[in-house]
Amino acid sequence: YEHHKALISRVSKLPAQTVDGVSVQVMGNIELPEEVVAVRDHGGNGIGLYRTEFQYLSRSGFPREDDLFDKYRDVVEVMAPSPVTIRTLDINGDKAVSYFRSHQEANPVLGLRAIRYCLNKPDVFKTQLRAILRASAYGNVRIMFPMISVVEEVRQAKAILKQVAESLAREGTPFKADIDVGIMIEVPSAAVMADVLADEVDFFSIGTNDLIQYSLAIDRGNRHVSYLYQPLHPAVIRLIRQVADAGREKGVGVFMCGEMAGDPVHLPILLGLGMDELSMNPQAIPVVKNAIRSLDLKQAREFVKAVLRMKTHEEVEGLLREAYGPLF
Amino acid sequence: YEHHKALISRVSKLPAQTVDGVSVQVMGNIELPEEVVAVRDHGGNGIGLYRTEFQYLSRSGFPREDDLFDKYRDVVEVMAPSPVTIRTLDINGDKAVSYFRSHQEANPVLGLRAIRYCLNKPDVFKTQLRAILRASAYGNVRIMFPMISVVEEVRQAKAILKQVAESLAREGTPFKADIDVGIMIEVPSAAVMADVLADEVDFFSIGTNDLIQYSLAIDRGNRHVSYLYQPLHPAVIRLIRQVADAGREKGVGVFMCGEMAGDPVHLPILLGLGMDELSMNPQAIPVVKNAIRSLDLKQAREFVKAVLRMKTHEEVEGLLREAYGPLF
Ligand SMILES: [Mg+2]
Ligand SMILES: [Mg+2]
Repeated sequence: YEHHKALISRVSKLPAQTVDGVSVQVMGNIELPEEVVAVRDHGGNGIGLYRTEFQYLSRSGFPREDDLFDKYRDVVEVMAPSPVTIRTLDINGDKAVSYFRSHQEANPVLGLRAIRYCLNKPDVFKTQLRAILRASAYGNVRIMFPMISVVEEVRQAKAILKQVAESLAREGTPFKADIDVGIMIEVPSAAVMADVLADEVDFFSIGTNDLIQYSLAIDRGNRHVSYLYQPLHPAVIRLIRQVADAGREKGVGVFMCGEMAGDPVHLPILLGLGMDELSMNPQAIPVVKNAIRSLDLKQAREFVKAVLRMKTHEEVEGLLREAYGPLF
Repeated sequence: YEHHKALISRVSKLPAQTVDGVSVQVMGNIELPEEVVAVRDHGGNGIGLYRTEFQYLSRSGFPREDDLFDKYRDVVEVMAPSPVTIRTLDINGDKAVSYFRSHQEANPVLGLRAIRYCLNKPDVFKTQLRAILRASAYGNVRIMFPMISVVEEVRQAKAILKQVAESLAREGTPFKADIDVGIMIEVPSAAVMADVLADEVDFFSIGTNDLIQYSLAIDRGNRHVSYLYQPLHPAVIRLIRQVADAGREKGVGVFMCGEMAGDPVHLPILLGLGMDELSMNPQAIPVVKNAIRSLDLKQAREFVKAVLRMKTHEEVEGLLREAYGPLF
C-alpha cells in the first residue's frame, strides 16, 4: 500500500492524458483556503469548486467584503495561473445558521437556497461578487452560480455581476473584465434546458449529488430512501449526456464537481460522455489522474453507447465490471 | 354567467371532440366515493384519479380489506362501464398521521412515500391490492402506482399484484384478470426513462404538480419559492413531450391528472403534445370539454413545435395568448 501511494504521488504531477492522447483537467474541491495546498501537492490542475459558505457560517453576522476578498485572494494567488472556480453562496436548509433563518421551511432542500437566496438578498450577493471580482485581479478566477433552475436566474445574476463590475471600474479597482461565468447543473430543469442555458455562460459544472437527489426525488440525507440514491441510474446518465452534448455543441466547457467525479469507477462513463474537467476531494486526484492515463477515450465513447441502452443502475454496474473490472 | 353555466351544463354530455374529429377522454379526480356523482353529472368519461388516502387518514389504524373494497366498488359500479383509475396509497409527509410516523424526515417530500412506502410495507400494500382487484369484478378498473422513480419499483409492485391475484384465484374470488396497470409519471427520472417504463405498463398518468415540483426543485407548498412553480416552464413541457412520445411509440396510453389538466388555457399544448386523457376536478370538466370542441388538433400540433423553441415560461405564455387568446 505504501509503495502504491508513493508511486501514485510520484506520477501525480504527470498530465492526466488518456491512452489516445486527450487531456482531462483534474481539479480539487475545497472549502477552506488552506486546503489549496493539498490540491497543489496532489497534482490538481486547479480548483473546480471553491465553496464559500464557511465565512458565512463561522460567525454571528454576514462577513465583510474585505474578509471575503482576503480568503479568495489567498487561494487565487497560490493556484495562479491555474483556474480557481469560486461558487457563490450556496446556503441551504441543512447549513443555515441563526441569522439566516427568517422563516422555517417544511422541505428546505426544495426551498429558498443558493442562487434563489442571493437574488432575494442582492446586498449580500453584491458584497460577495465584489470580493470575487477584486480577487480576480490576482490570478485566474471563474465565477459559478449554484442551483440554477431557470434561465432568468442566470440573466439576473449576470446583470447584478455587471452592476458590481461597473462600480468597481468607476472606483478604479482592478479586476478581470472578461471573467468566465458558469453555472452548476444540479436541478433537472437545468439539465433539460442545457441548450438554452449554454447561450448564457462560459461553462457548466454538473453537481451530481443534487442532480441525483432531485432527479430521483430522494433526500440524500434520508437513510430510508438511500437505496434510491443511484449515481449510475440510467436517468442520471441520460441527463448528464444531455448537458455534455449541449455544451459541446455550443462550445461551452462541461465540468463535473459532484462526488461521482472522484470515484475512478465512473471514469469510463464520464470521459465517454465528454467531461472536460473533473473536480474532487484533493486526496482523490492522484488515483483519478492515474486511472485516466490507462483509459482509451475512443473506447470509452463506444462503451457509453452500450451504457445508454441499459435500464437500471445494476445493469450499468454490471456492464462496467465486465468491461473495466480489471482496471479498478 | 348563469346563462353560460346552463349552456355548458347542457353541452357537457357531448363528446369532447376536436374540430378535426379527434376524441379526448375528459375524466374526473375524486377522493371520496360520493364525488363520483359530480363526475357523472358534469359529463366525465370516467375517473382518471381515485385517491385512496382518505380511508387511511380518517381512522386510528389501517383500514380492513372489506372497508376498502366497499369504497372502491361503490365508485366502480356507478361509473361502469367507464373506467375508474384507482391510485394505490400515496401517503406522504404532509398527509401522514400518527400511526404512520415511524420516523421523522427532514424533507418529507423527498422521503419514504407513496410506492416506496407500500413496497416497504407489503402487508399494507397487499390488503389494498386485494380490495382493488375484488372491486374490479364490478366494472372497469385500472390500477395506478404513484411516485415511480425507477423501473424496479414497477416490477416489484407488479410482482406483488400477481401474488395477490393468484391468491384470489385460488380462493375462487372473482376479479378482472387482465386489469390495466399504469404508473404516475411525476418524478423527473420516470419522465426521462419513459421509453423503458413503457415496456412494463398499460398507461402513464402524468402528475404535473409533483413533476413541476421535482423538475424545478421547489416545494410547491413553500411560498418563498412559489414564483418558480411554473407549469408552462419549457423544461416541464419537454419532459411531458418525452413521456408522450415514448407512450405513443410503444402503444401505451398517455394521460394527465395534475392540476395543469383542468385549466383550459393549457389545452392547446397538452393536446398538441398528444394527451389521450385529461383528468381533473369534476367542476372543471364541462369547461374543458367545451374548449376541446373549439380546438383543431392539427393546429395544436403545429403550435407545440413553436412552443418547444421557447426559453422561458413567460415566452410560452406570450405565445399562447397570441395564438389562442381569443379562445379563452
Ligand atoms: Mg448542490
Ligand atoms: Mg404526486
